[in-house]
Amino acid sequence: MKSTLITLFFCFVFSLTHAQIERIEPPFWWSDMNIGELQILCYGKDIAKYDLHIKDITISDVTRTENPNYLFVTIDTKGVKTGTISIDFTENDKVVFSQPYEFRSRKENSAKRKGFDSSDVMYLIMPDRFANGNLKNDSHKDTAEKADRSNPGGRHGGDIQGVIDHLDYLKDLGATALWSTPLLEDNEPAYSYHTYAQSDFYKIDPRYGTNEDYKRLASEMHKKDMKLIMDYVTNHWGSKHWMITDLPTKDWIHQWPEGFKRSNYRMTTQFDTNASQVDSKGCMDGWFDTTMPDMNQSNPLLLKYITQNAIWWIEYADLDGFRVDTYSYNDKIGIAKWTKAIMDEYPNFNIVGEVWMHDQAQMAYWQKDSKIGAIDNYNSHLPSVMDFTLHDAITVMFNEDENAWDKGMIRAYDNFTNDFLYPDINNILLFSGNHDTNRINEIYQEDINTYKMVMTLILTTRGIPQLYYGDEIGMLGNKDKKGDGDIRRDFPGGWPEDTQNAFLSSDQKNGRTEDQEAFHAFTKKVLQWRKNTKVIHTGKLLQFIPFDNVYVYFRHNAEKSVMVVINNSLKNQELDINRFREGLKSFKIGTDIITDSNINVTENFGVAAKTSMIIELK
Amino acid sequence: MKSTLITLFFCFVFSLTHAQIERIEPPFWWSDMNIGELQILCYGKDIAKYDLHIKDITISDVTRTENPNYLFVTIDTKGVKTGTISIDFTENDKVVFSQPYEFRSRKENSAKRKGFDSSDVMYLIMPDRFANGNLKNDSHKDTAEKADRSNPGGRHGGDIQGVIDHLDYLKDLGATALWSTPLLEDNEPAYSYHTYAQSDFYKIDPRYGTNEDYKRLASEMHKKDMKLIMDYVTNHWGSKHWMITDLPTKDWIHQWPEGFKRSNYRMTTQFDTNASQVDSKGCMDGWFDTTMPDMNQSNPLLLKYITQNAIWWIEYADLDGFRVDTYSYNDKIGIAKWTKAIMDEYPNFNIVGEVWMHDQAQMAYWQKDSKIGAIDNYNSHLPSVMDFTLHDAITVMFNEDENAWDKGMIRAYDNFTNDFLYPDINNILLFSGNHDTNRINEIYQEDINTYKMVMTLILTTRGIPQLYYGDEIGMLGNKDKKGDGDIRRDFPGGWPEDTQNAFLSSDQKNGRTEDQEAFHAFTKKVLQWRKNTKVIHTGKLLQFIPFDNVYVYFRHNAEKSVMVVINNSLKNQELDINRFREGLKSFKIGTDIITDSNINVTENFGVAAKTSMIIELK
Repeated sequence: MKSTLITLFFCFVFSLTHAQIERIEPPFWWSDMNIGELQILCYGKDIAKYDLHIKDITISDVTRTENPNYLFVTIDTKGVKTGTISIDFTENDKVVFSQPYEFRSRKENSAKRKGFDSSDVMYLIMPDRFANGNLKNDSHKDTAEKADRSNPGGRHGGDIQGVIDHLDYLKDLGATALWSTPLLEDNEPAYSYHTYAQSDFYKIDPRYGTNEDYKRLASEMHKKDMKLIMDYVTNHWGSKHWMITDLPTKDWIHQWPEGFKRSNYRMTTQFDTNASQVDSKGCMDGWFDTTMPDMNQSNPLLLKYITQNAIWWIEYADLDGFRVDTYSYNDKIGIAKWTKAIMDEYPNFNIVGEVWMHDQAQMAYWQKDSKIGAIDNYNSHLPSVMDFTLHDAITVMFNEDENAWDKGMIRAYDNFTNDFLYPDINNILLFSGNHDTNRINEIYQEDINTYKMVMTLILTTRGIPQLYYGDEIGMLGNKDKKGDGDIRRDFPGGWPEDTQNAFLSSDQKNGRTEDQEAFHAFTKKVLQWRKNTKVIHTGKLLQFIPFDNVYVYFRHNAEKSVMVVINNSLKNQELDINRFREGLKSFKIGTDIITDSNINVTENFGVAAKTSMIIELK
Repeated sequence: MKSTLITLFFCFVFSLTHAQIERIEPPFWWSDMNIGELQILCYGKDIAKYDLHIKDITISDVTRTENPNYLFVTIDTKGVKTGTISIDFTENDKVVFSQPYEFRSRKENSAKRKGFDSSDVMYLIMPDRFANGNLKNDSHKDTAEKADRSNPGGRHGGDIQGVIDHLDYLKDLGATALWSTPLLEDNEPAYSYHTYAQSDFYKIDPRYGTNEDYKRLASEMHKKDMKLIMDYVTNHWGSKHWMITDLPTKDWIHQWPEGFKRSNYRMTTQFDTNASQVDSKGCMDGWFDTTMPDMNQSNPLLLKYITQNAIWWIEYADLDGFRVDTYSYNDKIGIAKWTKAIMDEYPNFNIVGEVWMHDQAQMAYWQKDSKIGAIDNYNSHLPSVMDFTLHDAITVMFNEDENAWDKGMIRAYDNFTNDFLYPDINNILLFSGNHDTNRINEIYQEDINTYKMVMTLILTTRGIPQLYYGDEIGMLGNKDKKGDGDIRRDFPGGWPEDTQNAFLSSDQKNGRTEDQEAFHAFTKKVLQWRKNTKVIHTGKLLQFIPFDNVYVYFRHNAEKSVMVVINNSLKNQELDINRFREGLKSFKIGTDIITDSNINVTENFGVAAKTSMIIELK
C-alpha cells in the first residue's frame, strides 16, 4: 500500500513536470555520429529556471536566453550509448522532474551514403499537386487551411501516399531521383500548398502524411534504386512556427524597426565590393515575403538548430540529398558552416543550392572550392548549384532562327564556354523549368519538336538533369498571365475524380492522349537510355561552334563517344563531317537512339529542321 | 697611286656588300637596357650564307631559316657600351663586308617611366581624321593610296603635325593622355587610313609624318604634362609588309591550306575547356581580315621581333603606354610573354588590351594576376583591360525608364557588382565609344542631357576614362547604316578648307556652334575638375541600388568624398537622404561642381529629370 502510494505520488510529480516540457528538439538522436556534440532545445513555461544534470554525460554548455521558456543544453555525445538517458531538471540541487532522451543506432554505413549525382535524372514535384493517395488527410484538424481544389492557390490534397502510389510510373519513365518541394508543416492560413513557410521543422505536414510516411517514401524509393531529395529551407521559417510566435532570442530572426521589410533581392550585394551596408543588409536580412520571417544564421543557437535538424532528417528518413531554397539569400558565413557541417558528417552526400542569378561567375561563386569565391576568401562548401544561365538560354533560343552572333543555339554554346568557372562541372543541375518558372511547353506552345530539342540538350550535356512534373506529358502553365497556381496544376489522374489519368499510357482507358503520349514516349526513351550510358554521366564535353543554328557536341571518354546534333533552324541541314573529326575519332557508324537508325559518320549526313539526334558511336 | 687604287677597290667592295644588306632591325639599340640580349634581324639577298663576328661581343645565337635572305643574330648586350660596333659578315673566315650598329644611351630613368593611370583622361583620335597639319604629305610617293577626302573610306590627310598643332585644344579641354590609332606605315591600296594593316614596324607612315615627328609629338606632350599612348598591333601585320611578301619562315604567319581563312572571332575558345581544337585554332589562327595576315606569336623569332619593336618605340619615342589591338585574338602564351617582357623592362608602364567581350569574368580573365585566369594557370601580365560591359550598358540604359529589375541605371549598378572579379579595378578603361562603335551622340540623338549623364558616369566612377575625339562637340556617326567612315568623320576645323572650326570656342569666328559649345563646356568643366580631384582617381567606390532609375554612388577616401547622382528617369525625384548615410559620413554640405550650387546634404534634396549631379562634400 505504501509502495502504491509512493508510486502514485511519483506518477503525479512526473506528469506535472512533463507538462512543463512542451518540446524537446531534436526529439531523439543517434549514438554513433561523427559530430561529437548535441544541442538539445528544451521548451516549456519558465523552464530556464532549472539547472540540469545527466548521469554519465558531460554537459558542456547550458544557454539561457532572454525568453525564460527556453533552455539550450549542449552535451558531449562522444561515446554515448544507444538507449535512453534521463535529463534531470533540478532546482536547489534537487531533481524536480526528469525527461527521457533516446539515442538510436544509425543505419549501417549511414555516414557513407552516396548522394544524387550526374548519373541521376531528378524529377521535381509539388506534392500538393501530384497525386492524392490518402483522401482522409486533405484537411486536418491541426492545420488551418482546408482543402479547396477549385482554388488555384489553395490546397488540393496531394500527399506522400500519392507519390508512393506512383513510384512505378516514375521508375518506368526513367527518373532516378525525386525532389519534392517542402513537406514539413506549413500552418499559414493561405497558400500553404507551396509549403515554403514551414511551422514545424520536425514534423511532416499532416495533410501530406506523417513522418513515418516520409520515411516509407524513402524506403520504397530505395527498393527501386531511386533517391529521395528533401527541399530544405534555411533562409526563412513560416510566421506560424511555434518558435517564431515565442522567439527564443530577439535576433533569432532579422528584425526591422518597421516590422516587415521585404528583401531587395539583390544577391550581388553578397560579394559586391562596392555595395553599401544598407543594401547588403537589405538583401540578406530583408524578408522573402510577409509570411516568411528571415532567419538569422549568424545566431549560433539557430545555426546549430538548423544544422542538427537537417542531419536529423537525413538520418531519420534516410535521405539522398538536399535541395536548398534561396541559398544565396542566407547569411553567407552561416550557411557555409551549415553546409560544411552536413558534408563533414556525410562526405558523399549531395546538396544543390538555389542560386538564381544570371551570370556564371556569380553562380560559380557559390560552388564548393570556387576560385571565384576564393577571391574574397569565401567557400560555401555547397557541392552543387543550378544552371540558371542555361535555363535563361533554353527559354528563348528555340524561338530564334536568325544567323545572329549570339542567338539561337549559340546561346547554349556560349553558356558552356564558361564551364571553366565552375569547380565541379558535373555537379550542376540542368533544367528547363521548375515550380517558379513558366512551363517549357507553354513557352514553346506545346511544340513537341522543340520539347525534343530541349530534352536532348538537358539530358545529354554535362550535369544533372532535372525534369518538372508534367513536362513529360506536355503540361502548360503561365505564371505571368495566370499566377503561380497555373504552373502548379494538378497532374491529371492524381485524383480519383479525374476524368483522365495521364499516369496511364494512351492505350489504356482514360490514359494519355496521343499528344501526351508523344511527349512521354520521347522522354522515357531518352531517360531509359541515359540511365545506363555512363559516358553521358561523366564523359567530357566537346563542343563545336554552331553554324546555321545547328549545334554539335560530343560526350566522350576512353571507351565511348556520343555525338549530339541539334538543328534548331527551320531548314534541313547537312553536316560537314570533316569539322567534327576530333569528336568522331575513328568511329565509322553510329545509332541515333531517338530513331534507332544507323548513321554512317564517315560522310556528310543530313539532319532535319527542328530535329535533334543522339548518335551513339560504334 | 697604289694606295688610291687599293682604297678604290675597298670602296667598291664595301658598297657592294652594303647593297646586300637591305634591312637591319632594330635599326639601333640602347646600351643600358635591363634585358640582356638583342636579336638583330639582317635581311638581304642570300645573306644566310655568311658567318658573323663582332669584336668584343658574344654572339649567343645565329639562326638561319628556310629563307636564305634572313639571318637572326642574338648578341649578349650586358656591358655593351654606347657607340657603334661593327658586325662582320665572313665567308671562309674572311670578312666579306661589315655593318655598323649603334648603341645609344637611354634617357635618364627611362626604365622607371610611369604609364597612364586613373588620374588620366585619355583622348582617342584617328590621326587621318583629326587635323591636317602638313598639307604636303597627304599623299606620298612611297605609299600606294593617295589622299581623297571625298571618300569616307579614303585617306583624308590628317597627320602628326595636325595633332601637335592642337595639343593646346586638348590641354584646355582637360585631356591628359592621347591614344592615337596606329601611325606606322600601312601600304594597303585602300582603307589604309585606319592603319591597322601595317607594312613597316619601324617607320611612321609618311602620310602622317616621320619617326622624328612622332618623337616630337611625345616631347611636346610631355612639356604639357600629357602622355602619349601608342596603338600597338601584335595580332596581325599588313599584307604589304616587306616580311610578309618574303616570309622568313613559313610559320611566321598562320598559314591555311585555303590561303585566307577568316577568324571565327569566338574568343571564348581561348579558355573554354569544352572547345574543339578546330574552333580554337579557327579563332586564334584565323585572319582578322584579308589584308591582315595573322601573326604566329608562338614562333620565338617573331615573338622576339615584336617584343623588341615595342620596346624600341617606348625608348625611341618616349612613350607612356600602349593600347594593344585585338589582344585576346593573339596566341595566348606568346602574348603573355610579350606583355611580361615589356612590363619587366618598364615596371611602371601601362598597357591596355582590347578584350572585346561581353562578360566580366571573361574580360577579367585577361587582366594581370587574374584569379580567373589562374583557374587554368594563365597570367597574361596585361595591366589593363577595357570595360566593354559598361559600354554595353551605356549604349542602351539611357533610353530605358521602366522600373524593370535589370534596366535603366540598374545596368550600370550591375556592372560594378562584378568589380570583385578584376584584380586591379582602377586600371580599367572606361568609354562610351571608340573608333569601332556607333557614336554615343548618335545613339542618343544629340541629346545633351543624356551626354551629360554618360560623361558624369564615365568621368566619376572607378577606372580610366577614355573619350573619343569629337564626342565633346556632339559629333554623330552610325556605322550600321553608313559604314565605318561615318564614325570616323573629320574633326571640323582640322583642315584649312573647313568652313567651320570646332577647335575654336563659339565666340570666335567660325568657331563652335552654340550646341557644340554646350557639349564642349560640360566636358571641359568636368575634365578640368577631375584632373585635380584625387578621390576620383583612386577613391573607393560605394554604390547604392538604383530605385526609380536614380543611381547614387560615392567616391571616397580618408580625406574626401564625392557624391554622384544620376537621375535617368523622366521625372524630377527627391532623394531620401537617410539611405545614403554610409556615404555622406558626417558631411553637411556639398557643391555640385556641374552647377556650382551648394547643397545641404543633411536633408532630402531634389534632382531634376534626366540630370546628373557631382557633389563634392565638405
